[in-house]
Amino acid sequence: MRIKLTLSYIGDEYAGWQVQPSVRTVQGELQSAIKKLTGEDVSVAGSGRTDAGVHALGQVAHFDLSRDFEVKKVAGGLNYYLPQDIRVLSAKEVGNDFHARYNAKKKTYVYLIASEDNALYLNRAWYKPSLDVEEMKKCLPVLMGKHDFAAFMSSGSEVKTTVREIYDIKLVRRGELLVLRITADGFLYNMVRKIAGVLVKAGEGKLKADDVKKILDSRDAASTPLAPPYALYLYKVVYFRPQSK
Amino acid sequence: MRIKLTLSYIGDEYAGWQVQPSVRTVQGELQSAIKKLTGEDVSVAGSGRTDAGVHALGQVAHFDLSRDFEVKKVAGGLNYYLPQDIRVLSAKEVGNDFHARYNAKKKTYVYLIASEDNALYLNRAWYKPSLDVEEMKKCLPVLMGKHDFAAFMSSGSEVKTTVREIYDIKLVRRGELLVLRITADGFLYNMVRKIAGVLVKAGEGKLKADDVKKILDSRDAASTPLAPPYALYLYKVVYFRPQSK
Repeated sequence: MRIKLTLSYIGDEYAGWQVQPSVRTVQGELQSAIKKLTGEDVSVAGSGRTDAGVHALGQVAHFDLSRDFEVKKVAGGLNYYLPQDIRVLSAKEVGNDFHARYNAKKKTYVYLIASEDNALYLNRAWYKPSLDVEEMKKCLPVLMGKHDFAAFMSSGSEVKTTVREIYDIKLVRRGELLVLRITADGFLYNMVRKIAGVLVKAGEGKLKADDVKKILDSRDAASTPLAPPYALYLYKVVYFRPQSK
Repeated sequence: MRIKLTLSYIGDEYAGWQVQPSVRTVQGELQSAIKKLTGEDVSVAGSGRTDAGVHALGQVAHFDLSRDFEVKKVAGGLNYYLPQDIRVLSAKEVGNDFHARYNAKKKTYVYLIASEDNALYLNRAWYKPSLDVEEMKKCLPVLMGKHDFAAFMSSGSEVKTTVREIYDIKLVRRGELLVLRITADGFLYNMVRKIAGVLVKAGEGKLKADDVKKILDSRDAASTPLAPPYALYLYKVVYFRPQSK
């Protein structure tokens, strides 16, 4: 049976999603909790990797059990064994054609920028005071839609194409927080952090929307600034297929 | 010269506000940062103590310097020396008749209760699912106003009177968070955590508003449940006197 998990985690204490030797990872903690709960050694597939320090409010993953297990008891059971900074929000049985990574239709990431140097935002938002939000907003239409986002990617990932489609990109002020929210069919490695980095440059008066267009057209990531990981949240993953079994 | 600080801090790593031997405290970190910045050994007076694990978004404190110091440089300078989980939000010079504790007119505390077991709320909100919020709200008028709150106090503090006046008490849902916000002329030791504890009992169907009235009238704290510290935030302190020099 295949089980789909929706997860939240705080990335502070993890070397990211993917299992690596001798460091704590979210995938590793999950596999260890599943082993304790079910007795089975499984491989958990996530909708995508998140880097060290990056958080998730709606990461999705799946795994297969060879024996039957009461699905109702999965979320509570895993939360019992998991560390407190990883929480299963829901678990349900899905068909074997469901795949957390390959069936993802679109994903939403949120990036938080704080205008106040408040302890509450430690490892949760990027402190950048005095940004010109209107100048930042002028850059959003440049990025909206289907483009080759090669200039907004860190090297180290092998991808067939660097073309992605941004369905929605918004910048909203919520008190002292500036919330950047991007929904796309997929994201290149570090794409949101590179977009946040460029938008902050615009907010600092160092770039105009025209310059962002030039950066996008250049397809060259060498000069695109990378915003820090701890302000990034994988917010939601939406899937193509009906998922319930 | 006397300087008033407004501070935020995350209580996770501190044994509370007040200096104690061989543990990290907020007051201790502040005094150490002031020493590094100004060279002076000072005693910082807070508007009140906060317990281990309790956070602050608007704690107020003051200290005296024997030599002149450029006030504009205090906030940035202290933030340079302070750990990241303590942040000075503002610093200004005040008259010598200002006292962070004795001149406080009213204080506001916020207590967060989460209906979802989300990693984001780890050490930030109390996870309590399925509460009946309407039953909780029915208890608020009982607590509103001037009462002897002896039943909502932990022992260990010496106070002249256990009478306090609650000016405002609200319970508001914000997504998965239930926000309890209380403004009073002052608070007894653990008063907000005891109120939160009792309200959660009401939300669980174990107490009615009438029972809360009986608890209040009993002036006996022995059976009042104490909610955990990590969901409590000292939100704001308002002062009587004009504070600028």
